[in-house]
Parts: sequence; C-alpha cells; structure tokens
Amino acid sequence: MNRIDGRSYDQLRPVKFTRNFTKQAQGSVLVEMGETKVICTAMIEDRVPPFLKNTGKGWITAEYSMLPSSTETRKIRESSRGKIDGRTQEIQRLIGRALRSVVDLDSIGERTIWIDCDVIQADGGTRTASITGAFVALVEAANTLVESGTLSKLPIKNFVSAISVGVVEEKHLLDLCYKEDSKAKVDMNIVMTDKGEFIEVQGTGEEAPFSKNDLMELLKLGEKGNAELIALQKSVLGDIADKVGMIIKDTVGDKNEK
Amino acid sequence: MNRIDGRSYDQLRPVKFTRNFTKQAQGSVLVEMGETKVICTAMIEDRVPPFLKNTGKGWITAEYSMLPSSTETRKIRESSRGKIDGRTQEIQRLIGRALRSVVDLDSIGERTIWIDCDVIQADGGTRTASITGAFVALVEAANTLVESGTLSKLPIKNFVSAISVGVVEEKHLLDLCYKEDSKAKVDMNIVMTDKGEFIEVQGTGEEAPFSKNDLMELLKLGEKGNAELIALQKSVLGDIADKVGMIIKDTVGDKNEK
Amino acid sequence: MNRIDGRSYDQLRPVKFTRNFTKQAQGSVLVEMGETKVICTAMIEDRVPPFLKNTGKGWITAEYSMLPSSTETRKIRESSRGKIDGRTQEIQRLIGRALRSVVDLDSIGERTIWIDCDVIQADGGTRTASITGAFVALVEAANTLVESGTLSKLPIKNFVSAISVGVVEEKHLLDLCYKEDSKAKVDMNIVMTDKGEFIEVQGTGEEAPFSKNDLMELLKLGEKGNAELIALQKSVLGDIADKVGMIIKDTVGDKNEK
Amino acid sequence: MNRIDGRSYDQLRPVKFTRNFTKQAQGSVLVEMGETKVICTAMIEDRVPPFLKNTGKGWITAEYSMLPSSTETRKIRESSRGKIDGRTQEIQRLIGRALRSVVDLDSIGERTIWIDCDVIQADGGTRTASITGAFVALVEAANTLVESGTLSKLPIKNFVSAISVGVVEEKHLLDLCYKEDSKAKVDMNIVMTDKGEFIEVQGTGEEAPFSKNDLMELLKLGEKGNAELIALQKSVLGDIADKVGMIIKDTVGDKNEK
Amino acid sequence: MNRIDGRSYDQLRPVKFTRNFTKQAQGSVLVEMGETKVICTAMIEDRVPPFLKNTGKGWITAEYSMLPSSTETRKIRESSRGKIDGRTQEIQRLIGRALRSVVDLDSIGERTIWIDCDVIQADGGTRTASITGAFVALVEAANTLVESGTLSKLPIKNFVSAISVGVVEEKHLLDLCYKEDSKAKVDMNIVMTDKGEFIEVQGTGEEAPFSKNDLMELLKLGEKGNAELIALQKSVLGDIADKVGMIIKDTVGDKNEK
Amino acid sequence: MNRIDGRSYDQLRPVKFTRNFTKQAQGSVLVEMGETKVICTAMIEDRVPPFLKNTGKGWITAEYSMLPSSTETRKIRESSRGKIDGRTQEIQRLIGRALRSVVDLDSIGERTIWIDCDVIQADGGTRTASITGAFVALVEAANTLVESGTLSKLPIKNFVSAISVGVVEEKHLLDLCYKEDSKAKVDMNIVMTDKGEFIEVQGTGEEAPFSKNDLMELLKLGEKGNAELIALQKSVLGDIADKVGMIIKDTVGDKNEK
Repeated sequence: MNRIDGRSYDQLRPVKFTRNFTKQAQGSVLVEMGETKVICTAMIEDRVPPFLKNTGKGWITAEYSMLPSSTETRKIRESSRGKIDGRTQEIQRLIGRALRSVVDLDSIGERTIWIDCDVIQADGGTRTASITGAFVALVEAANTLVESGTLSKLPIKNFVSAISVGVVEEKHLLDLCYKEDSKAKVDMNIVMTDKGEFIEVQGTGEEAPFSKNDLMELLKLGEKGNAELIALQKSVLGDIADKVGMIIKDTVGDKNEK
Repeated sequence: MNRIDGRSYDQLRPVKFTRNFTKQAQGSVLVEMGETKVICTAMIEDRVPPFLKNTGKGWITAEYSMLPSSTETRKIRESSRGKIDGRTQEIQRLIGRALRSVVDLDSIGERTIWIDCDVIQADGGTRTASITGAFVALVEAANTLVESGTLSKLPIKNFVSAISVGVVEEKHLLDLCYKEDSKAKVDMNIVMTDKGEFIEVQGTGEEAPFSKNDLMELLKLGEKGNAELIALQKSVLGDIADKVGMIIKDTVGDKNEK
Repeated sequence: MNRIDGRSYDQLRPVKFTRNFTKQAQGSVLVEMGETKVICTAMIEDRVPPFLKNTGKGWITAEYSMLPSSTETRKIRESSRGKIDGRTQEIQRLIGRALRSVVDLDSIGERTIWIDCDVIQADGGTRTASITGAFVALVEAANTLVESGTLSKLPIKNFVSAISVGVVEEKHLLDLCYKEDSKAKVDMNIVMTDKGEFIEVQGTGEEAPFSKNDLMELLKLGEKGNAELIALQKSVLGDIADKVGMIIKDTVGDKNEK
Repeated sequence: MNRIDGRSYDQLRPVKFTRNFTKQAQGSVLVEMGETKVICTAMIEDRVPPFLKNTGKGWITAEYSMLPSSTETRKIRESSRGKIDGRTQEIQRLIGRALRSVVDLDSIGERTIWIDCDVIQADGGTRTASITGAFVALVEAANTLVESGTLSKLPIKNFVSAISVGVVEEKHLLDLCYKEDSKAKVDMNIVMTDKGEFIEVQGTGEEAPFSKNDLMELLKLGEKGNAELIALQKSVLGDIADKVGMIIKDTVGDKNEK
Repeated sequence: MNRIDGRSYDQLRPVKFTRNFTKQAQGSVLVEMGETKVICTAMIEDRVPPFLKNTGKGWITAEYSMLPSSTETRKIRESSRGKIDGRTQEIQRLIGRALRSVVDLDSIGERTIWIDCDVIQADGGTRTASITGAFVALVEAANTLVESGTLSKLPIKNFVSAISVGVVEEKHLLDLCYKEDSKAKVDMNIVMTDKGEFIEVQGTGEEAPFSKNDLMELLKLGEKGNAELIALQKSVLGDIADKVGMIIKDTVGDKNEK
Repeated sequence: MNRIDGRSYDQLRPVKFTRNFTKQAQGSVLVEMGETKVICTAMIEDRVPPFLKNTGKGWITAEYSMLPSSTETRKIRESSRGKIDGRTQEIQRLIGRALRSVVDLDSIGERTIWIDCDVIQADGGTRTASITGAFVALVEAANTLVESGTLSKLPIKNFVSAISVGVVEEKHLLDLCYKEDSKAKVDMNIVMTDKGEFIEVQGTGEEAPFSKNDLMELLKLGEKGNAELIALQKSVLGDIADKVGMIIKDTVGDKNEK
C-alpha cells in the first residue's frame, strides 16, 4: 500500500532547485521538496568572529527561520517574542556544522559565509531541505570567490545533503511529509557526503524506543535518499559541480610531493 | 533626461502580483515593484486582542520583516538582536493603520487578520509595496470568509494602495528605487483609496526643508501612481474586485430604510 | 461655536517656556502647551556614534518618554516592560530628524547632542511640544559651545517648531488637546521652519480617508500655528535668537568669495 | 569649619515640598532637598497583584528612575538598556518597604497604590528624598479615598521620612550632598517614623570598616534629621496631617471594647 | 596503549550516585562520572503546561545549567547574559525527551515533574551524566507518589541511561573525558533503555565525515556502556528498582483480560 | 524556652566549611549553616572591567544564585525568566561590597576575582552564609597568587563574616533559620571584621518599626555571632589564616619608614 501522497516507502518527494532566486546574495537558491519550500542564501562578509581573528581561517554560520505564514497555524515571529526558541537554535547549529564539515575553512581566508534558510512553506523536512539547498547556495557563493580570482580553487571538499527518515505505523519511510512526521514513532535526520559517509545522524524515539534493526533500516533509506539528492545537486550546479573536491586532490598532491 | 532605469519622472516600475504564492495562508501574494519583492500574506485567527474581547469587533494587525539576504549588505535578523528596531515598528504600524482604514471591522466579527509582509528582495519602496500587495492578500483572505458563508459581504470598504514619491536632484519623481531614495532630499509616502482620498501622507525633508510647492507636486505624483496601482489591483483580483465596497452600499441602504 | 476649552478653531493653547529648568544639562527647558508639560534637555557629549567616527561630523539623537504619572491611567514604564514601544520609537525618530534638519552637523565637530523629552503631564500634542521645546534647549546647549569659544558660530541654520492639527466633528482645528485628539478623524503633525518651509508632514486618517481639501485646510492651520510658535521661541531666546541662521549666511558668503 | 555649602555638620539642606505638582496623579509632590529634586506621585489602581487576589488586602509598590539629564554625565535610560540596574532595584524595593510599613494594607481594600519617584535633578540623597516626598504624595492620594467616602479613615499609621548620614573626612555629617557622598567612607540611610522608631537602617563602609561609635553618632544625626523632616511634612500637609495615625487609635479602641 | 587516565578503550570512568543529596526536592542525586559531577533533582508540581490542561496527562520538563565555576575558564551565567544559549537548549530538550520516553505520562495525572541538572564540575559527558543521574532522581520522586498512595504503581516503564562515545586518534572510545572530547573527530551520544533499545542516537562528525563502520563500532560501545550504567542504577535504587516496568506488565495484563 | 531547633537565642547553627569542594576554581568552599548549604568559589581572571583598565588596580565581583531545587517550592531559573530579580541583585551587590572592603585592590594588580555563591539548599541566611563562605574561598584563591610567587603578600586586610539576627515573637535571635525568618518582625544582616568593626548593617522592620533598644540588642548578637564565625574561618584556613592582615602591617611599616 502506498503513502498519503502516493509515493512508495523509499521514494523522495519531487525535488526542485531554483538558482539565483534573489539577486543580492552571492548564492541564492529556492529549494522545494514536495510542498516544503525554503529560500537558501549564502552571503560573504570580509570578517570573522572574534575567536578567528588573525588566524587566517574563515567561518560559516547559519541562521534558520520560518515565515509566520509558512505553517497552517500562524507561527509567532521570534523577533516579536524577543528570543530564539530551542528548536530553531538546534536547527541552525545543525545546518552550520553540516556545511562547515565540507568546507576547507583554512583556504577561504578571514571571511564569514552567512547561510540563511528562510522557510516560506513548511510541509515536513525543513531542516534537511535547508541543508540540501544551502549547500547549493554555498557552492554558488564560494564560486564567486573563484571567478573573481580571490581564491584559486573552490574551497569545498565534498557534497553534502540531508534527508529525514522515520518509522510510521511500523513502516520505515524516506522523506517524511508533515502528516507522516507527526505520526512517526521514530524520526531520524541523516546528513551525508557524496562519498557515502556520515556527517550527522540524529535519531529520536519520539514515543517509544527503537531497535537496532530499525536503526539499520533507517540508515539504508537515508543512504539511498542522500545519494539521489546529491545527484540532483550535481545536475543543477552543472559545470561548477566538477570543482567540488578539487581542493582535496590538490592538498593530497601537495603532500605527496613533499 | 531619463532616470537611472530609463523611466520618465512620473512612471511606476513594472508591477507584478502573483496570487496564491504560498499555500498555508488564506491570502498569499508575491508583489514585485521593479526589483523590490515582498511576500504578503493574510491569515485569519478566530480571536481578538484583549481590548476587543466581547465587543463583536475584529482586528487587523501587520508585521513586516526583511530577510537578511534581501539587502546588499546582510541585514542582521531582529530575532538575533532580540528586539525590533524603530524603522520596522514604524512600518508595521503604518501597514496596519492603512489596511484597517478600509476594512469594516464591525462586520468581520471577533477575528484577527494577521498581515505579514516579508521582503525577500529590497530595492526601495518596500513599505509602500507591502501595503499595495497586502491589500490584495487581505481581500483574498476576507473573501474566503464570504465563500465559506461565514460573512455575507466582503468587509472591505475601499481599495487601498501606497507609493513613494520624492525630490531627487531638484526633480519630483514617482516610485523611487533604492539608488534614487538614497539621494532624495525629500521623501514622501502616500497611501490612498480608489476614491482618490488620502489615508496617510508622510513627507520628510531628509536634509533640507521643502516648500509648499514641492508638497503639491509630490501629492500630484502620488495621486497618479496610486490610481495606476489600484487599477492593477482590480485587474489581478478579477471578479473579487467587484465585491469591494459593497458593504458600504448596503450600510447606506440600511440606513435609508430606517 | 467654540472648542471644549473655549478656544477658536485656529487658536493655540497658552504656550510657556521655562528656560534653565534643571541645572545639569547645557540646555534645559520646561515647555507647556496648555496642560501638556514636557521637560526638554540638551546635553553635549564629546563623541559620536560609530558610523561618524573620524568624519569630523556631529550627531543629534533624541529620546522621548512619558512619566508613569503623566497620564490619567498610569503608564507602565518601558524599563519595566524591557522594551521601547513602537509609538515611542516613532516619536523619538521624528524629534531627532526634525532637529538634525536645522543643525549644521559638519560644524559641530565630533560631538553628540542628546535631546531628552520627558513628558511630566500629558494632554495631547506631546510630540509636537517636544520638538518645539527641544529646539529651545538645543539652541541653549549649542550656544554654550559658542560662549566657551569652542565654536565660532551657532551651528543652527533655522528655527523649527511643530504643531498638531486635525479634523474633529468635520471642523479643522489647530493644536488638539487630548479630548479633541481622541475624537479626531484626521490627525496631522506639521513640523516647519521660520522660512515657512516644511520639515515633516504626517497626516493620518484615523478612521476614514480625507480629501485633498482637508489636507489643504490643515496645512494652512499648521502654517499659522508654527509661525506663532517660532515667534515665541524667538522671544524666549532673546539675544541668542539673533545668532540662529548666521552660519548659513557665512557659508553663502564663503561660497561667493571663491 | 563649615561644609562645602556652608551648613553645619548636623544641618539639613533647604527642604521644599510643592504639592499638586502635576494633575493626573491622586498625589503629586515635587520634593527638593537642596539641589536634589524629585517628582513623587501616588496613583490608585483598583486591583492588586495576583498574590493578594481575594484577600481583601491592598498593596503599595514603588518605582524609581532618574531622568537622563538629572546627572552631570547623561545617564543612559534603563528602557534603552532593556533592563533595570541593581541600584535602581534596590532603591525601589527600599521605598516600597518603607511606605508599606506605615500603611494599614488591610484597610485600603483590594487596591494598589503606585508610587513613582522620578528624579529630575540629582545632588545626593535621591533615595531618601524620594521616601520623604513620596510619603506626602501617598497621604494626598489616600486622602482622596477618604474624601470620596470610599474609606472612613486615612489608612496611614505613622509618618515616615528618610535621611542620609555619613562619615566624611572623619566627620559625622547629616544629609550629604553629592560631593560629600562621593568622598564618604561610611554612608548610611535611615528611615524613621514620627514615633522615633526605625523602619530601615542601611549602613555601608564604602572603603573601610566603621566602629560602633561611628554607628552611634550616625544614628543620632539620623534621628535629628528625620524629626525635622517629619515636622516639615506635617506642616505642608496641614489639616490632613491630623488624620495620620487615627486608624491605629480606632483599632486599639476596637480591641479594648471586645 | 591506554587512555589519558589509564582506562581501556571500552571502560567507563568510576560512576557514583549519591542519593538524597539535598533535602527540598522529592528526588535528589549527585551523579559523578569521573571528575564530572552533576546535581540532578526531580520536583513534583501539581499542574501542567497549558497544552495539557484538562487532559488528565502529566509532563516532564528538564533544565540544565553549568555553575560558572564548573569549567576551567569561568562560564558566564546565562541569567547575566539574559538568554539561554543554543547548546543549553539542545541539552535540556534532549534530557526532557529521554526521560519522557520512559514515563507513562497518562498515569501520573496532571502533574509536572521538573528535572534540574546543575553541573558543579565538568569534565566531559555532562549531558549523558545528567540523563543517567536524573533518571535515578526521577524514580525517587515518582516513588514518593507511590509511597503516599497517590499513585498505585510507579509510572516508569523502563530504565534509561546515556553515554558518550567517540573516535579519537582513529580509536573508538567509550565515555570521553573533556580532553578526549576536545580531540574527537566523531562524537556520539547514545541514550538507551534496559531492554537494549535506543531512545536517541546523536552522532556528529566534528571535523570529518565518518564511515558506516565507525558508526557500528560506536553503537557497540554505547550498548556496552549503557548496560553497565543501568546495572549501577538498579543497584543504587535497591528495592525501588523492582517497581520499574510494573506499570507495563499491568497494562498488558489489563489488555489481555478484555 | 528554646527555639524551633532547640538552640538558645544567641546560638549559631552548626557551621561547616568544606574546602576544595570542586576542582576548577582556585578557591572552592561548601559552607553549611544548619540546613543552608552554599557552594562558594573564587576564580581569578587576568583582566579588569573597563573602568579599571590601566589603573594597576584589581576588582572583585560577586554573583549569587539559588538552584531551582534549593527551596521547597521550585524556584524558576533567572535565565529562564531572562532577567535577574531585585533580591538577587541586592545580594550580589552586598557580597561584592563586603569582600572588596577587606581586600587591598591595589596590590592584586589588574585582575578580577570572580566570586560565585550558588545555594544548593536554602534554610534562611543564604546571603550571610555566602559572605562567610566566600571569604574562605577568596583567601584560598588569593593564596594561589602568593604560592605561585605572583604576589608577595596575601592581599587580604581583614577577615570578614556575616550573620543574620532578628526579632521573632518579641525575642532577639541570632542566625535565623527559614521558619524564624518568615515570622521575624525585624530582620537584620550584619557584616563585620575580625577587628569587631562593621562593614555593613542592614536592618528592616518588615511589618513594624523597631526601637533603638531593639537595634542595640541585635547589634550585640551580631557581634557575638560574627566573632564565632571568624574563629571558625581561622580554624579551617589553618596556616593561611596567619597571612591575613600582613599586607596592612607592611603598608603601615612602609609608611612609618618614610
């Protein structure tokens, strides 16, 4: 039997990347995963947080927000409440870590790349869509540094994408939409690279514990989903996709020569 | 001689309304005025602020925000700073007043209509674009109350739109883009109805005082711009446009019958 | 027929300026417009906000507050609520803009003049009384820089005053007291110079739109009221009044000589 | 040898109470002690904090603030900083305790009397001047409840006043002005009743410990100063002064009759 | 080769639970894992958050904090900074979820059990120690409801404990101390029940991605560590330990009888 | 007749100091006065607040907090409420002043000693226990500067301790526990040195004024209690106790030699 929206258990929702969605940021992507839509942008600032001053290293920081109208019941703005809630903080920390793990921070110099993920329509999986979309915006922005001659290589070591998986009514499902997510007994977010390695695995038994077998099944679905997402990232990035990972080859080359 | 972008002094930038831009809000419009792009939504909540409880009256409240990536230099989120700045407060108060002035708050019952204007790309005139776009979203949302039979008439008395005008290098200009705005000696926002009446006139001599003659010229431009914007609102709203103002005719009719 | 307090439609309430009201600030004025009483002070600080550092230019910033006991129902302190409300922000921004527009910021050097307007009794028109009174305090404070030999000319280009006008029960009235203000259909604040030019025009149709004719009538009343207020400012400033505007004459002179 | 301002060691500065200083509060007094000037008001609200609901008891709460222009170097507004500093909190708690201790909270019913002490000019001793002045405003406000027939007796059991004393250059001084206060080795605030009893004694060795003998000398000065202040309060309150304490006599009477 | 502190790769640090560490809370445990020391308390409040009112269900909420002196460099208090940082929020959400997952919230009635974990000395693994210690305090507190006859069964379905594992210098290690943690390439927190099932798995590649093999090795270590911790919890809880899980058996029994 | 816990009117509760209670701070003491338990730590930071930069002087600052579980009814964390309440501020200011008054700030160089007093169990007198315990931690921390050769003398001029006294049911009592404190008509905190001098005297008539005789009796009890506490501090500090006050003798000596 099929899922609410007719997908099979291991099928992603339709994924769409719209590059250059807005014009002010160096990277700007509208990512859509089914009805979930997130504007992901990357902006380069020529300075770093205090703890990196005079180290020659750069930084990547991420912020995440949902428009009040992105959810069925209007979401109160965090600026109105005067503070950022725990869920938002958790998500922005996750996005930041995921992207930093694939960037060669040494080679971008004392720059901060600001990632902003603004959800304009939410239907489950906004944090994983944010990571997947923000990676494309990040590559776009980093590429402007290459195009302008500021950097000689794209400072991106790997592709990174993320997907949610979960156990709903005893079934292991890939890419939960909101209705599925709200019924899930186990909910897991898996962040991976194009090498099939893991950046982050976060699984939670919302109502009940889960078995090691559940964990294994969910990991498999996550591996499948992320492989497909990265293929799509490569496709939408076109020529730039080939530049990802070059900095590693060079570094390795340099080392060999020594 | 023409303006930066080739327009004549009294010409609007290209205006575009995309209705049903997102799906969760009852009204959702992407308004574009040249490169300025704002997502305007209207969401209906079945309760009112404390001061209106048990009065039978409704309320309209507006919030305005700029995405960090909407401006050339990244704008720090107000949620990160923990407070809403003065400019934002001024703008949200203006949007709220403008929309409330054309709605029959008595007839919407104890409901709040939340207007959210989120600027995704800024190139001058975001507050006036917000009002113009939010009006369309408001009509859409109010119309769902009519369609569902909750209200018998659309509770909107008039169309309302807004436009900026200003004095730049001694010329009186309509609809300033950001570059013009930043050089303007006088800056005025004019909010008007389809009856050619004023809802709000806010003129500021940024660097120098302005004469009564300047004021007269700017008002004329504002009248022209708003008339054109309201014509566009009518066009994009199609059949619903005809329902605007009906509630007044009835009220008048009721009074006559007494 | 006369107004609540017996005034004719175009008559100001009794106006009184008490100079040197307190001793710590360089300028300190108690301004009274009828029962509205505001302590306006101007204090000079020998530094500027970050954006003006090393520019040689100065700055004027204004803060506005109402004592809790200034209104009939006690007003909660903004310090207790932990944030400054939208109305207050709007007013302080207005006062700051109005005063900056008549000061030659280049000639005051890297100094900030802090304007504080603290309402001790409120009966309508507190923001316009604040501007009118703060101008006198500002002149007093700026004059101490001239007296001490720090500046050679008073850095004030024009007088500035402000007054409210409005439409109450179909009548166009000058200088609304609180009771009139709360019934006004249209409410307008007009800030002007001694040259009869406008600094700021802010008109709002509180409940209903207003016609161009209304606007014209209100502007006329505003012109009359401001002319009278500036005459009173000149009178209370005595000899110092003559120094206002000198800096412009000189600048013009300098230019001619080149 | 005399003090900075020519006073003898045990002499108060000139004290002045201006009753009905503003019109909105039920009690409003400008108190001046030398160059220290504080607007003290008392406003009655017909409800109590949650912990007193349905107890039949009332409450008195006090807030204290200094105008930015009250001090030689402009004081940043606490509303701008978004929080109330420790010193302010300490002072408002002190004022509240002092006044509550002389009021029969049972007999005022479920009402809150808000005391606001706003310092418009500071020259030392603002907290003690606030208590002394606020008591007069409190009596005025409470008396309106008697005059209107709401209460049958003035619910004030005792007079209360406060004064600062200190050790400056080895001398024990009464009523320190700012210059003396800033050089004081010991600083003490003494709050007393008209019965010569203590409400609060707060002594601090700012730089060095103080001996029991110092303490005894300072208490003596405080007793003298408070006795004089209470005589002045009685004088300025005129006939109302006689009503203070009546509620105690009655309570005693009631008890005797049982 | 052994670890910094002489342990083998799969060895826990010495674990110690001190029950009844403080007297006010219904459950109070000092948990020590090596040099990491956390005071874990559980307090019962007879009301629930708004979203649970009139549902008959209870709630468990957790707060986590580090004393300023718990770390080598003094940690600024979150109360001084006026906000709770992202890491703290993440941890308190984790602790709350972990404990809620083993409690039968239906059977505790409309009560909130507040869990407080205050780190008095930090040497790595504070969040996992908090969960492990808080579980013991939670059982103590819940047992007071049984002892007093308020509840008939202990509403705890499973034991729960947590441990950190990680990859340090290519080795897979159990229970990282701070020095190990700061060098770890992969860091994982594993929360499990006494049934060997998972409540939460959070693994992060801090600097580099990790392989599926790493993941499997780390899970194995986590399983070993948690089994040992739960044995220790049972031992320290003594007789009460036997009551854990009874509520499930009964529920199952009830179902069978139907 | 004896007190609740069997003590005589002038008897301290059992006092216990546990030195080196935690390992990260340079000074760390658990102080217990009956059931009141406070962790007092002292940490040295090699910088000073802005107002002391380049003065060569040091600073001591104190923070005080109660664990949520320290009181019978759980105390909401100040970090959750986003602000520090007035009572806490008053107490931290008191602790800071008390300790600064016995330290030779000139001789510690540009260092800040952070005092943290975290109440883990509260039963009255937490602020005075904090001062008494923090002094021991302060001496420990300052002594590390002597041991390491950074300072040649212990920069502590005097011992300092604090105790509460009060009037309960007409009796003058030393060292009130919570039950006594909540019934006290007069409540006084007395901070003294080993020379029998006063640092701070804070007496409050909670419900009623108190007489000079009450004051004298309470001072006597405070003198007795503080003398006993300082004897205990000396005992627990052992050899280090002898170094307290040396810096004064030297300073005096230096002066004599001039």
